[in-house]
This record gives sequence, structure tokens and C-alpha cells, in this order.
Amino acid sequence: MPHNLENTISLLSRTPAALNALLRDLPETLTHRNEGEQTWTAFDVVAHLIHADRTDWIPRAKIILQFGDTQPFAPFDRLGHLRESQGKSLGELLDEFGRVRAENLAELRKLNLQPKDLARSGRHPALGAVTLSELSATWAGHDLTHLHQISRILAHQYRDAVGPFGIYLGVLQCAGHSS
Amino acid sequence: MPHNLENTISLLSRTPAALNALLRDLPETLTHRNEGEQTWTAFDVVAHLIHADRTDWIPRAKIILQFGDTQPFAPFDRLGHLRESQGKSLGELLDEFGRVRAENLAELRKLNLQPKDLARSGRHPALGAVTLSELSATWAGHDLTHLHQISRILAHQYRDAVGPFGIYLGVLQCAGHSS
Repeated sequence: MPHNLENTISLLSRTPAALNALLRDLPETLTHRNEGEQTWTAFDVVAHLIHADRTDWIPRAKIILQFGDTQPFAPFDRLGHLRESQGKSLGELLDEFGRVRAENLAELRKLNLQPKDLARSGRHPALGAVTLSELSATWAGHDLTHLHQISRILAHQYRDAVGPFGIYLGVLQCAGHSS
Repeated sequence: MPHNLENTISLLSRTPAALNALLRDLPETLTHRNEGEQTWTAFDVVAHLIHADRTDWIPRAKIILQFGDTQPFAPFDRLGHLRESQGKSLGELLDEFGRVRAENLAELRKLNLQPKDLARSGRHPALGAVTLSELSATWAGHDLTHLHQISRILAHQYRDAVGPFGIYLGVLQCAGHSS
């Protein structure tokens, strides 16, 4: 399946607005509660998305374009979001995610990637050879993984309140593969 | 855990805007593709949410308030969305979901439910006794189940394109418990 970069940009450009519509001014009993010890809140996930946009996608794309597979990507710091969110409100994080995403998509367009660029390979520290096309598609898949996670975290706050209906709610059967 | 109806209304009021921000004008290769035979597209899910709002939540709440547990709810038609979506565009469905949800929340507020109302029981055709509080919480859980499903359906369209990164994307490990 050839990866259509325009469709991916279309999706990537919508995620901040979707999270903003879902989460802004929602009560903190929903946005600031997690799924249990060592899991994230919706607030944490937004901070993680900002951190990933700052350190992951465009920086890695540039490494592929400049060095190909001769220089592995820096490993991603899965706790980097803690620095992003310190002392900030959810509203501030949502604003920041909108800003950093818009900047990154402008940067992506400036790279003016052609099919031959998208076919180039870089070196992932754990996965080995990955193409720029796969990296771009994964940016969208990463957004969707965390939208999936946020819907699950919010639903978790209703686990007791739904009573016997719980067996019908698919999101409550989700094993939490995206924490 | 006592169920806070105001928080639930807060969440319910956000779902149409969140889906609108995520899906409107997204390419049809994302919104009109499913996860394989007998599964739904994102477009189908929006139609299902409209259908559930029309036939499920407020009508059932009124049955509880009027008849208690002496009259079981009408069973929910899981294919009712096919009638909702016939001949319509996704944009039209998103508009309609916004409208029907706003009307239903206005109706819910008009019921002016008190703790003693929320504690009343109705009779679910399969589950037996359920309270109005559980029904209201399930309305929110149902929205979240389908947001969870939509993120999974969209991610499915990237399954091949992400290549080796797939093992890191939790949404791609999701077994589809909400189809």
C-alpha cells in the first residue's frame, strides 16, 4: 500500500483541534485521572504528544535526509513529557500542541518530499532500517494510538458508574496496549 | 463511585465537536474504509451515534421515569445507522450529530434529574435492572467506545504503511472489542 503523504498531513493537522474540542475545560476528574498506578492521564498524553512533535518526527526525518542509515536516531525519551507539562494547565498544553504541530507541518511541507526521498532509509536504534515513508505514516499512527488511549482513560473513569452496561462497552474491554 | 451527571453532560456536549474536528473533510480513503468484512467505517460510526441518540438514551430515560422497571426498553437496532446514513455525506452526518446531541442534552436538562430520579431502576431487555444513573453514565461510555473505535479504524488504514514501527503502536494491537 503506497503511503499518501497528503492524506497523512490532513490527519496530522486535525489532531490538535480534535483534542482541543474533546478536552478543553472538561472537568479535572476526567482529564487528570489515570487508569491506575504507572499509567497516564489525558493531560499527560497531551504533553507526550508535544514532546514527540518536538523531538521525534521532523528531527528524525532530517537525520534520514542528511545521513541516510549511517546515523541512528536518538532514542525517544518516554518520560520527556514530564518536563513539557510541569507547571502548565491543560489549556496551555492544548494551545502549545496546536502551535508546535502547525510549525512541524509547515516544516514538513518545506522539505517538499518526493517519492525518492520517502523511499530513503534511516536507522532506528531498536528496529533497524526504516524508511522516511514509514516514519511519516507512524507519526499519524502515533496520534491515533494516543487518541485511542485518551478515549480509554476517560472511559475508565466511568467503569463503576456504568454498572451492568460495562459488558457492552468495547473500550472497557481494551487491555491498555497503548499505555 | 457516585456518578456526576454534570461531568457527564460536559463530556457528552464535546463529542460532536471532537468528531467534527477529526473527521470533516478528511480524505475518504480514511473515513470510508473499514477494518475488514462486517466492520464499520468512521462514517458508519457517526451514523450509529446519531441513531443511538435518537432511539436510545433519552427515550430510555423517559421509560424509567414513567414506568420504572415495569416496562422493558425496546431493544436497540444495531443496524439502524444504515437508515440514518443513506444518501448522506459525512459532513451532513456530522452536522446532524451536532444538532441531535444538542437537542438531547437540552431535553436531559429539562428533566431536571435529582438523586432520587437517578437511583430509579428500569428494565433492560437483556441486562435486567439498570438505574437511570447507570444509563446516563453509559451514554458517555458509549461515545468513548466509538471514539476508541474510530481511532482504531483510522489507524488500520496505516497498518501496512508504518512497517516495523507497528509493534510500537498500541492502537494496532487492539483486538477490536468495540466493533
